[in-house]
Amino acid sequence: MNETIKSILGRRSIRSYETAPVEKEKIETILECGRFSPSAMNRQPWHFTVITDRKVLDKISAANRQVLLQSGDEQVRERAKDPDYDNFRGAPMAIVVSGHREAKFAAADCANAIQNMALAAYSLGLGSCYLASFKIAMEKPEGAYLLKELRIPEGFEPLYALSLGHGNETLGERAPRRENTVTYIE
Amino acid sequence: MNETIKSILGRRSIRSYETAPVEKEKIETILECGRFSPSAMNRQPWHFTVITDRKVLDKISAANRQVLLQSGDEQVRERAKDPDYDNFRGAPMAIVVSGHREAKFAAADCANAIQNMALAAYSLGLGSCYLASFKIAMEKPEGAYLLKELRIPEGFEPLYALSLGHGNETLGERAPRRENTVTYIE
Repeated sequence: MNETIKSILGRRSIRSYETAPVEKEKIETILECGRFSPSAMNRQPWHFTVITDRKVLDKISAANRQVLLQSGDEQVRERAKDPDYDNFRGAPMAIVVSGHREAKFAAADCANAIQNMALAAYSLGLGSCYLASFKIAMEKPEGAYLLKELRIPEGFEPLYALSLGHGNETLGERAPRRENTVTYIE
Repeated sequence: MNETIKSILGRRSIRSYETAPVEKEKIETILECGRFSPSAMNRQPWHFTVITDRKVLDKISAANRQVLLQSGDEQVRERAKDPDYDNFRGAPMAIVVSGHREAKFAAADCANAIQNMALAAYSLGLGSCYLASFKIAMEKPEGAYLLKELRIPEGFEPLYALSLGHGNETLGERAPRRENTVTYIE
């Protein structure tokens, strides 16, 4: 098994991190891997927001917590009662990928960028977690101030984020895969 | 630069292939990399259709060509006039990834699977091209017979395909990237 395939099969979602910051050189390598993702018609309809200020991540999580506390779902409300509620699970940083609202395949193009960055992070010894829950408040009119604070460019909307850091958990077994997901037309 | 990052930055879309089939063992490794992609809530809302019968790929391309010949866009009609029109660019095989229609993040989850498979293919010395244009006819009522022929499971819709084969072109320079696509919040 070559190193690339080892990275693809070894990568996991990491939900506990050390507080140590990620080395700048690694951040730049990860970003390059995101920017060199494939996109439909090579349109590259993405914008990357690198957040290394933990106070900003806390502010995003607090805004999401407020929204979830109003949820009609009791389980969701219970989870949000945790004062340590944190979408980023203690990671020292995250990269938000926003897609252009008028690009037909932005959802796929930006997913390619996140997946490339998650694999690059793993290959550099870092942990990561692919997130969509970070944007709950930003999608509401009352959370639009967050888009301004993050300086998301006009015409773009946050789609996914990747939390990043030095992992602080022992990797468990890989989650089992669904059966019968392949058909052969030979 | 480690091997994983070399694969991420080295991968290109390949549009010319040798006719030699892809080795079965490599196909299985590539599929494993697709199946072990991350997905929202680990739902794995994907189905893989491995098409190694070139006649089936020709049939799909011919159906798409018929649709494009009716296009209101003259450039599109001109391209479709080519009797060798082929969505798969002569590749000996393709893997179609279909997403569950009710899975909120199927577009991203299935993109993750394609991207993992494209990187795995590159690391195994194969060429690939990430496609969405293969489904033009399948999305129309008159092309629904193609979904039956491909035995796409109930509730799923084809989203992307990856053509695969031994590449038959010299890799050019990487396409330049858009400028000013990164904001730092420090």
